[in-house]
Amino acid sequence: MSRPLRLGMVGGGSGAFIGGVHRMAARLDGSFETVAGALSSTEQKSRESGRALGLDDRRSYGTWEQMLEGELARPEGDRIDAVSIVTPNHVHFPVASAFVRAGFNVVCDKPMVLSSAEASELSRAVREAGVTFAVTYNYSGYPLVREARELVASGALGTVRKVLVEYNQGWLATRLEEQENKQADWRTDPARSGVAGAVGDIGSHAENLVSTVTGLELTHICADLSTFVPGRRLDDDASLLLRFDGGAKGVLIASQIAVGIENGLTLRVYGEEGGLHWRQEEPNSLLVHRLGEADRVLRPGNDYLSESARAASRLPSGHPEAFLEAFANIYRGVAAAIRNGGTKDPLLDFPGVVEGSRGVHFIERTVESAASEAKWTDARFRPESAAA
Amino acid sequence: MSRPLRLGMVGGGSGAFIGGVHRMAARLDGSFETVAGALSSTEQKSRESGRALGLDDRRSYGTWEQMLEGELARPEGDRIDAVSIVTPNHVHFPVASAFVRAGFNVVCDKPMVLSSAEASELSRAVREAGVTFAVTYNYSGYPLVREARELVASGALGTVRKVLVEYNQGWLATRLEEQENKQADWRTDPARSGVAGAVGDIGSHAENLVSTVTGLELTHICADLSTFVPGRRLDDDASLLLRFDGGAKGVLIASQIAVGIENGLTLRVYGEEGGLHWRQEEPNSLLVHRLGEADRVLRPGNDYLSESARAASRLPSGHPEAFLEAFANIYRGVAAAIRNGGTKDPLLDFPGVVEGSRGVHFIERTVESAASEAKWTDARFRPESAAA
Amino acid sequence: MSRPLRLGMVGGGSGAFIGGVHRMAARLDGSFETVAGALSSTEQKSRESGRALGLDDRRSYGTWEQMLEGELARPEGDRIDAVSIVTPNHVHFPVASAFVRAGFNVVCDKPMVLSSAEASELSRAVREAGVTFAVTYNYSGYPLVREARELVASGALGTVRKVLVEYNQGWLATRLEEQENKQADWRTDPARSGVAGAVGDIGSHAENLVSTVTGLELTHICADLSTFVPGRRLDDDASLLLRFDGGAKGVLIASQIAVGIENGLTLRVYGEEGGLHWRQEEPNSLLVHRLGEADRVLRPGNDYLSESARAASRLPSGHPEAFLEAFANIYRGVAAAIRNGGTKDPLLDFPGVVEGSRGVHFIERTVESAASEAKWTDARFRPESAAA
Amino acid sequence: MSRPLRLGMVGGGSGAFIGGVHRMAARLDGSFETVAGALSSTEQKSRESGRALGLDDRRSYGTWEQMLEGELARPEGDRIDAVSIVTPNHVHFPVASAFVRAGFNVVCDKPMVLSSAEASELSRAVREAGVTFAVTYNYSGYPLVREARELVASGALGTVRKVLVEYNQGWLATRLEEQENKQADWRTDPARSGVAGAVGDIGSHAENLVSTVTGLELTHICADLSTFVPGRRLDDDASLLLRFDGGAKGVLIASQIAVGIENGLTLRVYGEEGGLHWRQEEPNSLLVHRLGEADRVLRPGNDYLSESARAASRLPSGHPEAFLEAFANIYRGVAAAIRNGGTKDPLLDFPGVVEGSRGVHFIERTVESAASEAKWTDARFRPESAAA
Repeated sequence: MSRPLRLGMVGGGSGAFIGGVHRMAARLDGSFETVAGALSSTEQKSRESGRALGLDDRRSYGTWEQMLEGELARPEGDRIDAVSIVTPNHVHFPVASAFVRAGFNVVCDKPMVLSSAEASELSRAVREAGVTFAVTYNYSGYPLVREARELVASGALGTVRKVLVEYNQGWLATRLEEQENKQADWRTDPARSGVAGAVGDIGSHAENLVSTVTGLELTHICADLSTFVPGRRLDDDASLLLRFDGGAKGVLIASQIAVGIENGLTLRVYGEEGGLHWRQEEPNSLLVHRLGEADRVLRPGNDYLSESARAASRLPSGHPEAFLEAFANIYRGVAAAIRNGGTKDPLLDFPGVVEGSRGVHFIERTVESAASEAKWTDARFRPESAAA
Repeated sequence: MSRPLRLGMVGGGSGAFIGGVHRMAARLDGSFETVAGALSSTEQKSRESGRALGLDDRRSYGTWEQMLEGELARPEGDRIDAVSIVTPNHVHFPVASAFVRAGFNVVCDKPMVLSSAEASELSRAVREAGVTFAVTYNYSGYPLVREARELVASGALGTVRKVLVEYNQGWLATRLEEQENKQADWRTDPARSGVAGAVGDIGSHAENLVSTVTGLELTHICADLSTFVPGRRLDDDASLLLRFDGGAKGVLIASQIAVGIENGLTLRVYGEEGGLHWRQEEPNSLLVHRLGEADRVLRPGNDYLSESARAASRLPSGHPEAFLEAFANIYRGVAAAIRNGGTKDPLLDFPGVVEGSRGVHFIERTVESAASEAKWTDARFRPESAAA
Repeated sequence: MSRPLRLGMVGGGSGAFIGGVHRMAARLDGSFETVAGALSSTEQKSRESGRALGLDDRRSYGTWEQMLEGELARPEGDRIDAVSIVTPNHVHFPVASAFVRAGFNVVCDKPMVLSSAEASELSRAVREAGVTFAVTYNYSGYPLVREARELVASGALGTVRKVLVEYNQGWLATRLEEQENKQADWRTDPARSGVAGAVGDIGSHAENLVSTVTGLELTHICADLSTFVPGRRLDDDASLLLRFDGGAKGVLIASQIAVGIENGLTLRVYGEEGGLHWRQEEPNSLLVHRLGEADRVLRPGNDYLSESARAASRLPSGHPEAFLEAFANIYRGVAAAIRNGGTKDPLLDFPGVVEGSRGVHFIERTVESAASEAKWTDARFRPESAAA
Repeated sequence: MSRPLRLGMVGGGSGAFIGGVHRMAARLDGSFETVAGALSSTEQKSRESGRALGLDDRRSYGTWEQMLEGELARPEGDRIDAVSIVTPNHVHFPVASAFVRAGFNVVCDKPMVLSSAEASELSRAVREAGVTFAVTYNYSGYPLVREARELVASGALGTVRKVLVEYNQGWLATRLEEQENKQADWRTDPARSGVAGAVGDIGSHAENLVSTVTGLELTHICADLSTFVPGRRLDDDASLLLRFDGGAKGVLIASQIAVGIENGLTLRVYGEEGGLHWRQEEPNSLLVHRLGEADRVLRPGNDYLSESARAASRLPSGHPEAFLEAFANIYRGVAAAIRNGGTKDPLLDFPGVVEGSRGVHFIERTVESAASEAKWTDARFRPESAAA
């Protein structure tokens, strides 16, 4: 392993949640070292946060525009190698666009941007600039999610018929946004979160998980969105029927009012010959079904797993890895791609601008379906047109 | 405990599955003794099956009509006290109607009948005859289902917001009906099973479970039915969005092609202040969530349970009871009602003609919704009109 | 199935626990019908209990001696086919001996008798009388315990190296015997329970489970017994190191003071090539390990199980059976043996006088080891000598 | 957070397992940056490993003696702040002693040293030098282990009666040490591993877990050690009966031949009023029992936990943390102590030379007990005398 790459960060100052996650994930494998930042929404708070993180004052910028300028002013070999964007959603697009156009590699939190129009524009910019661009659909980094993808791809389950995906949480079962909770505040604010609440924040992860594991293309959806907490301005609960190209069907459930559920992302897939079941909260077991056979319980770190799953864990079997390690697998993949001139290592795959655009598209179509009297809303995603 | 009541049975001859279940359930607590039967579709097979069960030849009838006549011919104190109908679905209505009209108490398998018209007529007959009538939505007999119902009723979860119910199985993932499988054969035959496959056979149990536990009234549904196995004549998979009176929402999933799932009936309910999770395959744990508290795991046989849940188990905690014991709770309730002149013991509740009618209504509306371009189909059940 | 056999019962009057279990187990499959009894310790209570059970007054005897006499006085074809002895332990021997000598088949609760001397004498009597004799080590009746036995016997685990068996409960964590609890009262009374408390009541089940599944012969034990509850007169906790013939080792833990554990009987076996794990409280999963392979989860009712395991369940997979069904498997085996002139059906095996004697021997050796300064106490059981 | 402290490492070159774990754990929270190393057993391999890790060649030393000399030669503010010793066991003592005596803080893998004599000498050296010294009994770093400790200390379980601790693995079920497996090789070699195999490698973790959580002092043990794999030179399986000061009893099981078990460290504690159950392989659930109450399932990241448990996690509830995060908690505590002039932060506690000495003592007494004909071997640990 060579020296860590240099990371800059936009957002992630004190009080933030996901910024710290990105920093730990970036650091865990020595992939990146955070050396620059525009960490908060005001200049003063940015510098204070920078100091708290041990950033050199000269690279703790007041705004992201200053950071962009400041880093560009440094000699080429001394600039940041990538920037992580961990702000509320509405800031993703301007920052990502600007850094991409200036030739920086970008790691952007999800949902990538607020609209398909933004997604198209950003996708075009990424293509033109030729930079590495990652969207942190971090759950795709779990070893057993990679194993699940390999199982489907290998045909071990046969043609997929039914997909059940859920992402349930209970933390917004009460009106937390009125209680000085920074996370709840912006996530329930349409101006900063976008057109959707639960659908954007967690439903989008669920959509990505299905797409990652099954490779199936959504064609139609039928959505019912709810806002259960009085006074809330965005949906906090979603139920969708799904139809996929090729005839598979599915259900997607996302809720922030499921009292007692912490971070219940689960995926079940049933094919003609087998099935699988994975749960994020106990991520180190993958239940695999086969017609006429006893269920098997796959666990990370074992030789019986695919190469891809094995590459995604660091420890021997029985030494559980979890959320941060899966998240770090995204950063590991990004670092490998950057070192490799922009080419992904197939064993260290990560979601990019296509997955980010698909997620934004899914959010838009879901909101459209929820408002529609028609049963089925076309939800087909065409990355070409998205990026046209 | 007094002597067992006398039970007659229609259906349940050799090769049947549910007949044996009914007999064991009826016998377990000494509630009933099977003394008469018209067990098969032909006279000869009926008598052979009767002999195999140890029935007196004189009460092993060739047809259910003969049984009705034969039992009526006996002195009143010597007739069967109830008849169990465990035939394929299409036979339920004629047999139930005839026995009810003749004044016999009836235990009828589900779905109760094939149409709402039949349900109305049968309901009226039951009301007029004043007999005890049970429909074996047997999962309502589990102690922890009763505890769940008490929890919701007591307000421990607050107003219910979201209900997730599933009944998944994998046994029909291949075309079993072509392989001399008697159970698969009639269940996939519209003439014997009715208008629905998975929806009628298991979706109806799911509907009953939701209704039993939450007491919520369905107002609208949006259904997607599939037939995944080529050549099959009825649906083998269903996904529904649910809307309830009062604003609760839900999802109902029923599938017979979920490879590897054996009998996966599960219920999750989330209210404003709490939630619960129950799984039929491990029926002796009920997970209970409360805002801000650690989850609790309730188990049968403990003093902390409601009186209703405690009345539904026979053994000390840790001595698991399961499917047959839950089923026997239905028979226990029926026996108590019969002995009590038709009045149910509130601690030994069981589903009757209203629940049976509601189930039939649900099946019909689901098939209607699946065929509809409209998103929402009215699914409100009006037992008055049903029985008018 | 022919008509039920006729069962008499000694013990099991009102307030008892295990008598009701025996009756439900005997009845579930229609194996037996309880027609006679000497149910309580006084004549009056016996008759009251008999009436409550619906026994004919003429066969509801005041004492077991009267029952023996009364049944012998009936014509041969009209006597009870077997007697179940479900009294406190100290009554087992006199009743069993008398009925055996009179030629009756016997089902006796465990531990079979109070001493090896009694065990020898009873064993000899059974051999001489040629009757069928069962000891209700009921956990051996679980389908997956039978599968476990088959797995070991088939060599699927390789030579067994390590056995871990536990039977933990928490119900005696306080001095329940002072609180009018009939079950606690006699179980903690040396005059009625015998030389051991936890070891006799539940440790003996653990010993039987190991012996049943592994077939291994204990050679040496090292026991530490405790009485944690002040004032209690027998042990309420036991830990033993085990050594088996052929070099396997093990640990046996039995406790009645494990607060929160309901009926925690578990078995783990590790061989050179595989292992297994079974838990009584969730008895429908058997975890099977194999070198280099993912764990498999076996479930009852599936074709991949051994014939013996399949013969022990009544329902399709996913329809859980539990404690009473396992217990009923003992009665089913006894009924088959009686009908078959005393020859066991190999698919319906049940523990008999050898297993009963082995259990008594184990209890005695454990108490001896606990009192010894020496590390190892010889625990080899010689059924020949026991029965000499 | 200020800048990371500077870490040197002895051992942990290519092919090692635990060195990489230490580096990730040290890095995760930015506590430490690895800047120096003597990573392998030969000079050339050390330098190659150093280069692979991105160490500056000038601080990639050929031997630990050179590293000690080299670091001492640097100006005081530029030396390493601590050294991690991650070699096979036999190297711990000389390296630790030398660095401690030179005034360096030390993080040493377990078991700390090979004998009580070494432990005493090292303890004295630590006391005299006044340095911070940690032994990586890393499982004590799990949030729910800390919660368990708080629960016992708070009296929530009442006086502890029974402790069951197990550490089972299957990876050495075959003679892996003959198959070029570096980890198996030294662990089964008495010259490098010490007097014990399984007992030293994993049994010692189990002992520490009991001591950490319960605070109970072992007084007597009764051990049975086995070497199941033919040709192996150390024990690969251990079963011990435990007696504690104050009357509690226990069982400790450690095995490396439990086929199919990956890293099965579990702890169960039963007191007069409650109990708990924790499993390392699913470390984010702590089952808590209370007399007469339903079991509760505690999960990290929730407000209902103790301050100590909350301080040990980084993420919101439902975002699982695992082995590396728990390990990093040790490094976080060490960094806090170093920054704080050697005083531990009570919320960031970690095991030190006393725990290390106790572990060595336990290993010695276990081997002694296994060789003894006497049932009980005195196992009381006197840290005073150990360090006298």
